[in-house]
Amino acid sequence: MRAVVLNTGTELLAGDVHDTHLAFIAREIFPLGLRIEERRTVGDGVVIGETLKELFQRAEIIFVTGGLGPTSDDITRDVAADLLALKLEENAELLASLKERLKVRGIKWFPSIARQAQVPVGAQILPNENGSAPGLYLKANINPKIKSPHIFLLPGPPRELQPMFRKSAMLILRSIAKTPSIERRFYKIAVLGESAIEAKIGKQILAIPGIELGYCARPGEVDVRMIGSRSALEQADAIVRADLSELIFTDDDKTLEEVLVRLLTEKKQTLATAESCTGGLLANRITNVPGASSVLLAGYICYANEAKIDILGVEPGLIEQHGAVSQEVARAMAEGARRRAKSTYALATTGIAGPDGGSKEKPVGTVYVALADDTETKVRKLFFPSERETFKQLVAQFAFEMLRRKLVSGGS
Amino acid sequence: MRAVVLNTGTELLAGDVHDTHLAFIAREIFPLGLRIEERRTVGDGVVIGETLKELFQRAEIIFVTGGLGPTSDDITRDVAADLLALKLEENAELLASLKERLKVRGIKWFPSIARQAQVPVGAQILPNENGSAPGLYLKANINPKIKSPHIFLLPGPPRELQPMFRKSAMLILRSIAKTPSIERRFYKIAVLGESAIEAKIGKQILAIPGIELGYCARPGEVDVRMIGSRSALEQADAIVRADLSELIFTDDDKTLEEVLVRLLTEKKQTLATAESCTGGLLANRITNVPGASSVLLAGYICYANEAKIDILGVEPGLIEQHGAVSQEVARAMAEGARRRAKSTYALATTGIAGPDGGSKEKPVGTVYVALADDTETKVRKLFFPSERETFKQLVAQFAFEMLRRKLVSGGS
Repeated sequence: MRAVVLNTGTELLAGDVHDTHLAFIAREIFPLGLRIEERRTVGDGVVIGETLKELFQRAEIIFVTGGLGPTSDDITRDVAADLLALKLEENAELLASLKERLKVRGIKWFPSIARQAQVPVGAQILPNENGSAPGLYLKANINPKIKSPHIFLLPGPPRELQPMFRKSAMLILRSIAKTPSIERRFYKIAVLGESAIEAKIGKQILAIPGIELGYCARPGEVDVRMIGSRSALEQADAIVRADLSELIFTDDDKTLEEVLVRLLTEKKQTLATAESCTGGLLANRITNVPGASSVLLAGYICYANEAKIDILGVEPGLIEQHGAVSQEVARAMAEGARRRAKSTYALATTGIAGPDGGSKEKPVGTVYVALADDTETKVRKLFFPSERETFKQLVAQFAFEMLRRKLVSGGS
Repeated sequence: MRAVVLNTGTELLAGDVHDTHLAFIAREIFPLGLRIEERRTVGDGVVIGETLKELFQRAEIIFVTGGLGPTSDDITRDVAADLLALKLEENAELLASLKERLKVRGIKWFPSIARQAQVPVGAQILPNENGSAPGLYLKANINPKIKSPHIFLLPGPPRELQPMFRKSAMLILRSIAKTPSIERRFYKIAVLGESAIEAKIGKQILAIPGIELGYCARPGEVDVRMIGSRSALEQADAIVRADLSELIFTDDDKTLEEVLVRLLTEKKQTLATAESCTGGLLANRITNVPGASSVLLAGYICYANEAKIDILGVEPGLIEQHGAVSQEVARAMAEGARRRAKSTYALATTGIAGPDGGSKEKPVGTVYVALADDTETKVRKLFFPSERETFKQLVAQFAFEMLRRKLVSGGS
């Protein structure tokens, strides 16, 4: 079945916000054998109706996101009702729950909020547990006089759309979708580049008939994606396992930090972080993972030299002699953090994120990453001449991969 | 002029990666009076050619992103050359610089990499400073026998596309674009909701002829966007200033953390963070801002009670009596961090991010935020019953806004 996504919102075309719905929906519906064939993004206005009409001819399922809220630029509900010649009616139950929701949270009521209780006749309400605007499902040919595909009208904020999609839309989609005939494998590799990965597996995989192979490179990470029949995928999987083996940190779409939290939890081991140039990114990524509290004992962000000395016990003489960005200081930071937090491991980063602070000997992008455990401290010097946030991500990827390899190679 | 974006990449439709190019390009070209009218996303394959052909009729400028790399799924260059009946020729200079780039970085050469030195006859090369694949500009009607718009072929990785766009594509676009006739204003407000904002300004703004008004709500932040003629925008701006005044934290598209770093730098004041439930997010966001090193003295991530006691000097009895998630502990954390780091201000967070750890008295979502300076410590209790990452963002927004208001109200 042809499924398409239509993102609405002038804020998307103006660049004020990034869409995340396409990715979310694509992943959710994949197990049902459904793939998104196309995505369009248009602004708020009559163009929504025109595009919807065009997509009626091209798709059997349309997911429309955005434009269900209370403000004047939210017109998706009206446009869809109009296009399908359906009357909008106020739903008393919805109105009452809207009022209740605001009351509980101590938020003031505005008359415009009531628009969100309007429902096209015959549409099914998709309850919104995290916001005020409900979603709507309009089944195929809901108005028998007008040929139309299955249409899902979904709210713009991801924290509203996502649980709604999982709880309500997926139930409906399961009854619409046909049995999946293709499957998907997905592997992630940190630190290694995409050409190097393709050189290892590309030719052999593409020699298998019916395999679709794709790579996606991100700072410090390459995703390898294969789509095909189960038997073709099994052949391909054997090649990937043989040639990349322990370089793969997940085949289950986990993040590197999720893998670390799982490994540390399994081993009942703990971590501390001592961050200079990554400024909290390591700890922040780790603590995005539920259960992080049992593995991350403490994080120390020591931008200032005084903080490195005070908290991590780095010798002032070491900083004077070698500079704060040096192998010696990275080592002392990791060891100091491990000692202070009484953790199994400590990761430390010290480098020059830029745009200022570089020198001829240590240009912007120079960085040292250290990993300490009870037997040794490893320090690696790296060079990532990238803009600030990419630099931080590259360093974090490298540090996490250093720890992951330690953990999978049977670290103490 | 009608400008459109075509994102290519099965990884986008499969949900393996989010597109950020639309937003970037839209913002860059806005000052030239150019707006993106539509965005399409399609997978790698013949559909790229079909969609391009369709867009030839609908657009005067097309930005194509992705598919210029070295791997087998990178076919944009070939598809475009084919559609325009242009021969591809190997560019010797490009080939040499590709080889040099890899050599400097110690990356192994693979023959497939040479594909990136292929150039359609007559196309202009857009140098890539951060990657191997160059961009390409194909001027309108580049092959006089085929009517075609201006076409920019741009690489997929944002860290490659962005500097290339700024340095090379913008120069070309400036010569193509007509004079801008409309302008744009953009305001961001933290903590307050969009209905409350619309109630303050909506009716009055929409009463001004020719103003396009939009809202975009994100966790802890609402963007208000207005587009129109300069004179209409000046009327609207006066309303916004009068009714929202100090609630606006930027009219220049800065992030809240950029505003904080600027304010602290101007005042020569400093900050420390003591984070429990936000786990480093505060420090990470602050250190994403160039120049953060002169304002953030230290960050302490104290998930474990032992770390709160050891680093921040929180009294063990206080945690025993009131619990780690309490007004008293939040206060002690902020004061302890400020004392330890010798900073002007300290922000502290302690709360229950979930999914586990809640109780009847303190359900998941309960959080205390404290701000300490030399005269007082303010603590606020909040309730954000959201999933983990949204929870962290909401707490960070609230904490940052607390500090910002302190700073703009003439904090010591």
